[in-house]
Amino acid sequence: MEIFMREPWTAATTLLALLVYFLIIGMVATARAKYGVKAPAVTGNEQFERAYRVQMNTLEQMALFLPALWLYALYVSDVGAAVGGLLWIVGRLIYARAYLADPASRGPGAIISLVASVGLWIGAGYGVIKALI
Amino acid sequence: MEIFMREPWTAATTLLALLVYFLIIGMVATARAKYGVKAPAVTGNEQFERAYRVQMNTLEQMALFLPALWLYALYVSDVGAAVGGLLWIVGRLIYARAYLADPASRGPGAIISLVASVGLWIGAGYGVIKALI
Amino acid sequence: MEIFMREPWTAATTLLALLVYFLIIGMVATARAKYGVKAPAVTGNEQFERAYRVQMNTLEQMALFLPALWLYALYVSDVGAAVGGLLWIVGRLIYARAYLADPASRGPGAIISLVASVGLWIGAGYGVIKALI
Repeated sequence: MEIFMREPWTAATTLLALLVYFLIIGMVATARAKYGVKAPAVTGNEQFERAYRVQMNTLEQMALFLPALWLYALYVSDVGAAVGGLLWIVGRLIYARAYLADPASRGPGAIISLVASVGLWIGAGYGVIKALI
Repeated sequence: MEIFMREPWTAATTLLALLVYFLIIGMVATARAKYGVKAPAVTGNEQFERAYRVQMNTLEQMALFLPALWLYALYVSDVGAAVGGLLWIVGRLIYARAYLADPASRGPGAIISLVASVGLWIGAGYGVIKALI
Repeated sequence: MEIFMREPWTAATTLLALLVYFLIIGMVATARAKYGVKAPAVTGNEQFERAYRVQMNTLEQMALFLPALWLYALYVSDVGAAVGGLLWIVGRLIYARAYLADPASRGPGAIISLVASVGLWIGAGYGVIKALI
Protein backbone atom coordinates (compact mmCIF):
# COMPACT_ATOMS: atom_id res chain seq x y z
CA MET A 1 0.00 0.00 0.00
CA GLU A 2 1.69 3.15 -1.20
CA ILE A 3 0.16 5.25 1.56
CA PHE A 4 2.02 3.55 4.35
CA MET A 5 5.21 3.66 2.37
CA ARG A 6 5.28 7.30 3.38
CA GLU A 7 6.29 6.09 6.85
CA PRO A 8 9.20 3.79 5.92
CA TRP A 9 11.54 5.03 8.68
CA THR A 10 8.93 4.42 11.34
CA ALA A 11 8.30 0.97 9.88
CA ALA A 12 12.04 0.19 9.96
CA THR A 13 12.29 1.44 13.56
CA THR A 14 9.32 -0.72 14.55
CA LEU A 15 11.02 -3.78 13.06
CA LEU A 16 14.20 -2.94 14.97
CA ALA A 17 12.24 -2.61 18.24
CA LEU A 18 10.61 -5.99 17.52
CA LEU A 19 14.06 -7.48 16.96
CA VAL A 20 15.24 -6.24 20.38
CA TYR A 21 12.07 -7.66 21.95
CA PHE A 22 12.60 -10.95 20.11
CA LEU A 23 16.16 -11.22 21.42
CA ILE A 24 14.94 -10.52 24.97
CA ILE A 25 12.34 -13.31 24.61
CA GLY A 26 15.16 -15.61 23.47
CA MET A 27 17.24 -14.57 26.49
CA VAL A 28 14.37 -15.53 28.83
CA ALA A 29 13.98 -18.93 27.13
CA THR A 30 17.71 -19.51 27.50
CA ALA A 31 17.63 -18.45 31.17
CA ARG A 32 14.68 -20.79 31.82
CA ALA A 33 16.68 -23.75 30.53
CA LYS A 34 19.97 -22.69 32.12
CA TYR A 35 18.59 -22.08 35.62
CA GLY A 36 16.12 -24.99 35.53
CA VAL A 37 12.95 -22.97 36.09
CA LYS A 38 10.22 -25.35 34.95
CA ALA A 39 7.04 -24.01 33.36
CA PRO A 40 4.56 -22.76 34.51
CA ALA A 41 6.82 -21.25 37.22
CA VAL A 42 8.28 -17.78 36.61
CA THR A 43 10.01 -17.49 39.97
CA GLY A 44 12.54 -19.50 41.99
CA ASN A 45 15.82 -18.24 40.52
CA GLU A 46 16.94 -14.64 40.87
CA GLN A 47 18.82 -14.53 37.55
CA PHE A 48 15.85 -15.97 35.64
CA GLU A 49 13.51 -13.53 37.36
CA ARG A 50 15.68 -10.61 36.25
CA ALA A 51 15.58 -11.77 32.63
CA TYR A 52 11.84 -12.35 32.85
CA ARG A 53 11.22 -8.92 34.37
CA VAL A 54 13.25 -7.31 31.58
CA GLN A 55 10.96 -9.03 29.07
CA MET A 56 7.76 -8.10 30.93
CA ASN A 57 8.82 -4.50 31.38
CA THR A 58 9.73 -4.24 27.70
CA LEU A 59 6.28 -5.60 26.81
CA GLU A 60 4.60 -3.16 29.22
CA GLN A 61 6.50 -0.27 27.67
CA MET A 62 5.84 -1.39 24.07
CA ALA A 63 2.10 -0.94 24.68
CA LEU A 64 2.83 2.72 25.41
CA PHE A 65 5.54 3.18 22.81
CA LEU A 66 4.18 1.60 19.60
CA PRO A 67 0.82 3.43 19.47
CA ALA A 68 2.49 6.76 20.36
CA LEU A 69 5.22 6.12 17.76
CA TRP A 70 2.72 5.50 14.95
CA LEU A 71 0.38 8.33 15.86
CA TYR A 72 3.38 10.66 15.87
CA ALA A 73 4.49 9.27 12.49
CA LEU A 74 1.05 9.62 10.94
CA TYR A 75 0.12 13.01 12.37
CA VAL A 76 3.51 14.71 12.60
CA SER A 77 6.61 13.22 10.99
CA ASP A 78 8.01 9.89 9.84
CA VAL A 79 11.66 10.78 10.45
CA GLY A 80 10.86 12.41 13.79
CA ALA A 81 9.07 9.26 14.92
CA ALA A 82 12.06 7.15 13.86
CA VAL A 83 14.42 9.34 15.91
CA GLY A 84 12.16 8.99 18.97
CA GLY A 85 11.93 5.25 18.31
CA LEU A 86 15.70 4.84 18.18
CA LEU A 87 15.99 6.65 21.51
CA TRP A 88 13.42 4.23 22.96
CA ILE A 89 15.43 1.26 21.67
CA VAL A 90 18.69 2.60 23.12
CA GLY A 91 16.93 3.08 26.46
CA ARG A 92 15.64 -0.50 26.42
CA LEU A 93 19.10 -1.90 25.68
CA ILE A 94 20.65 0.10 28.55
CA TYR A 95 17.78 -1.01 30.79
CA ALA A 96 18.19 -4.71 29.93
CA ARG A 97 21.95 -4.68 30.45
CA ALA A 98 21.70 -2.79 33.76
CA TYR A 99 18.80 -4.89 35.12
CA LEU A 100 20.59 -8.19 34.50
CA ALA A 101 23.70 -6.90 36.32
CA ASP A 102 21.82 -5.26 39.18
CA PRO A 103 18.06 -4.48 39.27
CA ALA A 104 18.72 -1.37 41.39
CA SER A 105 20.61 0.18 38.46
CA ARG A 106 17.67 -0.04 36.04
CA GLY A 107 16.61 3.60 36.41
CA PRO A 108 18.52 5.44 33.67
CA GLY A 109 17.54 3.07 30.84
CA ALA A 110 13.92 3.09 31.96
CA ILE A 111 13.88 6.88 32.04
CA ILE A 112 15.40 7.21 28.55
CA SER A 113 12.68 4.97 27.05
CA LEU A 114 9.98 6.74 29.00
CA VAL A 115 11.18 10.16 27.83
CA ALA A 116 11.03 8.87 24.25
CA SER A 117 7.47 7.52 24.69
CA VAL A 118 6.24 10.65 26.47
CA GLY A 119 7.83 12.87 23.82
CA LEU A 120 6.14 10.89 21.03
CA TRP A 121 2.86 11.00 22.95
CA ILE A 122 3.00 14.79 23.40
CA GLY A 123 3.97 15.33 19.77
CA ALA A 124 1.19 13.03 18.58
CA GLY A 125 -1.27 14.86 20.82
CA TYR A 126 -0.27 18.14 19.22
CA GLY A 127 -0.70 16.66 15.73
CA VAL A 128 -4.07 15.10 16.54
CA ILE A 129 -5.43 18.31 18.08
CA LYS A 130 -4.29 20.23 15.00
CA ALA A 131 -6.15 17.70 12.83
CA LEU A 132 -9.30 18.08 14.94
CA ILE A 133 -9.50 21.87 14.90
CA MET B 1 -0.47 11.61 6.37
CA GLU B 2 -3.83 13.02 5.40
CA ILE B 3 -5.43 9.60 5.20
CA PHE B 4 -5.15 8.85 8.88
CA MET B 5 -6.34 12.31 9.73
CA ARG B 6 -9.76 10.94 8.85
CA GLU B 7 -9.64 9.08 12.16
CA PRO B 8 -8.74 11.97 14.49
CA TRP B 9 -11.27 11.05 17.20
CA THR B 10 -9.96 7.51 17.38
CA ALA B 11 -6.41 8.85 17.54
CA ALA B 12 -7.38 11.21 20.39
CA THR B 13 -9.12 8.36 22.24
CA THR B 14 -6.04 6.17 21.81
CA LEU B 15 -3.85 8.88 23.33
CA LEU B 16 -6.28 9.20 26.25
CA ALA B 17 -6.18 5.42 26.82
CA LEU B 18 -2.36 5.58 26.76
CA LEU B 19 -2.48 8.38 29.34
CA VAL B 20 -4.58 6.23 31.68
CA TYR B 21 -2.15 3.34 31.17
CA PHE B 22 0.80 5.66 31.79
CA LEU B 23 -0.73 6.87 35.06
CA ILE B 24 -1.30 3.26 36.15
CA ILE B 25 2.36 2.45 35.40
CA GLY B 26 3.31 5.45 37.54
CA MET B 27 1.06 4.19 40.32
CA VAL B 28 2.84 0.82 40.30
CA ALA B 29 6.26 2.48 40.43
CA THR B 30 5.07 4.57 43.38
CA ALA B 31 3.64 1.49 45.14
CA ARG B 32 6.92 -0.38 44.59
CA ALA B 33 8.86 2.35 46.38
CA LYS B 34 6.24 2.95 49.09
CA TYR B 35 5.82 -0.72 50.07
CA GLY B 36 9.48 -1.63 49.63
CA VAL B 37 9.00 -4.35 47.01
CA LYS B 38 12.47 -4.71 45.54
CA ALA B 39 12.91 -5.66 41.86
CA PRO B 40 12.74 -8.29 40.41
CA ALA B 41 10.01 -9.28 42.92
CA VAL B 42 6.39 -8.52 42.01
CA THR B 43 4.89 -10.12 45.12
CA GLY B 44 5.26 -9.78 48.88
CA ASN B 45 2.92 -6.88 49.62
CA GLU B 46 -0.83 -7.11 49.03
CA GLN B 47 -1.29 -3.42 48.18
CA PHE B 48 1.57 -3.49 45.66
CA GLU B 49 0.19 -6.68 44.12
CA ARG B 50 -3.18 -5.01 43.62
CA ALA B 51 -1.60 -2.06 41.81
CA TYR B 52 0.53 -4.42 39.74
CA ARG B 53 -2.45 -6.57 38.79
CA VAL B 54 -4.39 -3.45 37.72
CA GLN B 55 -1.48 -2.61 35.41
CA MET B 56 -1.17 -6.15 34.04
CA ASN B 57 -4.90 -6.50 33.46
CA THR B 58 -4.99 -3.14 31.70
CA LEU B 59 -2.14 -4.31 29.45
CA GLU B 60 -3.90 -7.63 28.77
CA GLN B 61 -7.08 -5.79 27.83
CA MET B 62 -5.28 -3.21 25.67
CA ALA B 63 -4.13 -6.03 23.38
CA LEU B 64 -7.79 -6.80 22.73
CA PHE B 65 -9.01 -3.22 22.73
CA LEU B 66 -6.56 -1.28 20.54
CA PRO B 67 -6.69 -3.55 17.46
CA ALA B 68 -10.51 -3.81 17.69
CA LEU B 69 -10.76 -0.03 18.15
CA TRP B 70 -8.72 0.74 15.04
CA LEU B 71 -10.32 -1.89 12.83
CA TYR B 72 -13.71 -0.48 13.82
CA ALA B 73 -12.48 3.05 13.09
CA LEU B 74 -11.06 2.10 9.70
CA TYR B 75 -13.87 -0.17 8.51
CA VAL B 76 -16.89 1.41 10.18
CA SER B 77 -16.72 4.81 11.87
CA ASP B 78 -14.20 7.15 13.52
CA VAL B 79 -16.68 8.74 15.92
CA GLY B 80 -18.25 5.37 16.75
CA ALA B 81 -14.82 3.96 17.60
CA ALA B 82 -14.12 6.96 19.83
CA VAL B 83 -17.39 6.43 21.73
CA GLY B 84 -16.53 2.76 22.28
CA GLY B 85 -13.02 3.77 23.31
CA LEU B 86 -14.29 6.25 25.89
CA LEU B 87 -16.51 3.53 27.36
CA TRP B 88 -13.46 1.27 27.60
CA ILE B 89 -11.49 4.02 29.39
CA VAL B 90 -14.33 4.65 31.88
CA GLY B 91 -14.47 0.90 32.57
CA ARG B 92 -10.72 0.77 33.22
CA LEU B 93 -10.89 3.71 35.64
CA ILE B 94 -13.75 2.09 37.57
CA TYR B 95 -11.83 -1.21 37.54
CA ALA B 96 -8.61 0.36 38.86
CA ARG B 97 -10.38 2.24 41.65
CA ALA B 98 -12.39 -0.80 42.73
CA TYR B 99 -9.47 -3.25 42.55
CA LEU B 100 -7.25 -1.10 44.77
CA ALA B 101 -10.00 -0.84 47.38
CA ASP B 102 -11.05 -4.51 47.20
CA PRO B 103 -10.09 -6.99 44.44
CA ALA B 104 -13.44 -8.77 44.86
CA SER B 105 -15.23 -5.64 43.62
CA ARG B 106 -13.38 -5.51 40.29
CA GLY B 107 -16.21 -7.10 38.26
CA PRO B 108 -18.29 -4.12 37.03
CA GLY B 109 -15.36 -2.11 35.66
CA ALA B 110 -13.93 -5.20 33.96
CA ILE B 111 -17.28 -5.94 32.36
CA ILE B 112 -17.76 -2.37 31.07
CA SER B 113 -14.36 -2.48 29.31
CA LEU B 114 -15.01 -5.95 27.96
CA VAL B 115 -18.41 -4.92 26.57
CA ALA B 116 -16.69 -2.00 24.81
CA SER B 117 -13.99 -4.28 23.32
CA VAL B 118 -16.47 -6.95 22.26
CA GLY B 119 -18.76 -4.33 20.72
CA LEU B 120 -15.87 -2.84 18.74
CA TRP B 121 -14.80 -6.36 17.70
CA ILE B 122 -18.28 -7.28 16.45
CA GLY B 123 -18.67 -3.97 14.62
CA ALA B 124 -15.24 -4.33 13.04
CA GLY B 125 -16.11 -7.90 12.00
CA TYR B 126 -19.23 -6.62 10.28
CA GLY B 127 -17.22 -3.92 8.49
CA VAL B 128 -14.47 -6.31 7.42
CA ILE B 129 -16.94 -8.90 6.10
CA LYS B 130 -18.72 -6.16 4.13
CA ALA B 131 -15.34 -5.18 2.64
CA LEU B 132 -14.60 -8.80 1.71
CA ILE B 133 -17.87 -9.56 -0.08
CA MET C 1 -11.46 4.34 5.03
CA GLU C 2 -11.15 2.83 1.58
CA ILE C 3 -7.37 2.62 1.85
CA PHE C 4 -7.37 0.07 4.62
CA MET C 5 -10.02 -1.95 2.87
CA ARG C 6 -7.18 -3.10 0.67
CA GLU C 7 -6.06 -5.26 3.61
CA PRO C 8 -9.35 -7.04 4.40
CA TRP C 9 -7.80 -10.50 4.79
CA THR C 10 -5.26 -9.21 7.28
CA ALA C 11 -8.04 -7.41 9.16
CA ALA C 12 -10.10 -10.63 9.27
CA THR C 13 -7.07 -12.61 10.48
CA THR C 14 -6.44 -10.01 13.18
CA LEU C 15 -10.01 -10.34 14.41
CA LEU C 16 -9.64 -14.13 14.47
CA ALA C 17 -6.42 -13.84 16.50
CA LEU C 18 -8.23 -11.51 18.92
CA LEU C 19 -11.03 -14.06 19.23
CA VAL C 20 -8.53 -16.79 20.21
CA TYR C 21 -6.97 -14.40 22.73
CA PHE C 22 -10.42 -13.49 24.08
CA LEU C 23 -11.28 -17.17 24.57
CA ILE C 24 -7.98 -17.72 26.40
CA ILE C 25 -8.76 -14.78 28.71
CA GLY C 26 -12.16 -16.37 29.37
CA MET C 27 -10.44 -19.68 30.14
CA VAL C 28 -8.22 -17.97 32.75
CA ALA C 29 -11.23 -16.30 34.38
CA THR C 30 -12.98 -19.67 34.53
CA ALA C 31 -9.87 -21.34 35.97
CA ARG C 32 -9.57 -18.61 38.61
CA ALA C 33 -13.11 -19.29 39.83
CA LYS C 34 -12.86 -23.09 39.51
CA TYR C 35 -9.58 -23.46 41.41
CA GLY C 36 -10.31 -20.72 43.94
CA VAL C 37 -7.30 -18.51 43.19
CA LYS C 38 -8.31 -15.19 44.72
CA ALA C 39 -7.13 -11.91 43.16
CA PRO C 40 -4.53 -10.43 43.26
CA ALA C 41 -2.81 -13.87 43.44
CA VAL C 42 -1.76 -15.49 40.15
CA THR C 43 -0.13 -18.53 41.76
CA GLY C 44 -1.12 -21.27 44.18
CA ASN C 45 -2.77 -23.78 41.85
CA GLU C 46 -0.84 -25.57 39.11
CA GLN C 47 -3.79 -25.83 36.69
CA PHE C 48 -4.62 -22.13 37.06
CA GLU C 49 -0.97 -21.23 36.57
CA ARG C 50 -0.90 -23.17 33.32
CA ALA C 51 -3.95 -21.34 31.98
CA TYR C 52 -2.50 -18.01 33.13
CA ARG C 53 0.87 -18.72 31.49
CA VAL C 54 -0.90 -19.62 28.21
CA GLN C 55 -2.59 -16.20 28.34
CA MET C 56 0.60 -14.34 29.23
CA ASN C 57 2.63 -16.10 26.55
CA THR C 58 -0.05 -15.38 23.96
CA LEU C 59 0.06 -11.71 24.96
CA GLU C 60 3.87 -11.67 24.80
CA GLN C 61 3.76 -13.20 21.33
CA MET C 62 1.00 -10.87 20.09
CA ALA C 63 3.32 -7.91 20.63
CA LEU C 64 5.70 -9.51 18.16
CA PHE C 65 3.06 -10.88 15.80
CA LEU C 66 0.58 -8.04 15.25
CA PRO C 67 3.09 -5.33 14.23
CA ALA C 68 4.96 -7.78 11.96
CA LEU C 69 1.66 -8.96 10.46
CA TRP C 70 0.53 -5.45 9.57
CA LEU C 71 3.87 -4.24 8.28
CA TYR C 72 3.97 -7.32 6.05
CA ALA C 73 0.41 -6.63 4.89
CA LEU C 74 1.10 -2.97 4.15
CA TYR C 75 4.51 -3.35 2.53
CA VAL C 76 4.21 -6.76 0.88
CA SER C 77 0.89 -8.57 0.59
CA ASP C 78 -2.52 -8.73 2.26
CA VAL C 79 -3.18 -12.38 1.41
CA GLY C 80 0.38 -13.39 2.34
CA ALA C 81 -0.01 -11.71 5.72
CA ALA C 82 -3.30 -13.53 6.29
CA VAL C 83 -1.66 -16.90 5.52
CA GLY C 84 1.15 -16.15 8.00
CA GLY C 85 -1.45 -14.99 10.51
CA LEU C 86 -3.46 -18.20 10.21
CA LEU C 87 -0.29 -20.20 10.82
CA TRP C 88 0.35 -18.12 13.95
CA ILE C 89 -3.21 -18.82 15.18
CA VAL C 90 -2.86 -22.57 14.56
CA GLY C 91 0.42 -22.53 16.51
CA ARG C 92 -1.22 -20.74 19.44
CA LEU C 93 -4.10 -23.24 19.57
CA ILE C 94 -1.68 -26.18 19.56
CA TYR C 95 0.40 -24.41 22.22
CA ALA C 96 -2.60 -23.74 24.49
CA ARG C 97 -3.88 -27.31 24.23
CA ALA C 98 -0.46 -28.83 24.86
CA TYR C 99 0.45 -26.47 27.74
CA LEU C 100 -2.74 -27.22 29.66
CA ALA C 101 -2.14 -30.97 29.35
CA ASP C 102 1.60 -30.83 30.10
CA PRO C 103 3.78 -27.67 30.08
CA ALA C 104 6.77 -29.72 28.90
CA SER C 105 4.94 -30.40 25.60
CA ARG C 106 4.51 -26.73 24.71
CA GLY C 107 7.43 -26.60 22.29
CA PRO C 108 5.90 -27.43 18.88
CA GLY C 109 3.01 -24.94 19.11
CA ALA C 110 5.37 -22.21 20.32
CA ILE C 111 7.73 -22.88 17.43
CA ILE C 112 4.96 -22.79 14.81
CA SER C 113 3.82 -19.34 16.00
CA LEU C 114 7.36 -18.10 16.23
CA VAL C 115 8.14 -19.27 12.69
CA ALA C 116 5.05 -17.37 11.49
CA SER C 117 6.10 -14.18 13.33
CA VAL C 118 9.72 -14.39 12.18
CA GLY C 119 8.62 -15.06 8.59
CA LEU C 120 6.32 -12.02 8.65
CA TRP C 121 9.09 -9.94 10.23
CA ILE C 122 11.63 -10.94 7.54
CA GLY C 123 9.13 -10.34 4.74
CA ALA C 124 8.17 -6.96 6.19
CA GLY C 125 11.86 -6.07 6.51
CA TYR C 126 12.34 -6.85 2.84
CA GLY C 127 9.33 -4.72 1.90
CA VAL C 128 10.39 -1.79 4.09
CA ILE C 129 13.96 -1.81 2.75
CA LYS C 130 12.59 -1.84 -0.81
CA ALA C 131 10.43 1.17 0.09
CA LEU C 132 13.45 2.99 1.55
CA ILE C 133 15.81 2.53 -1.41
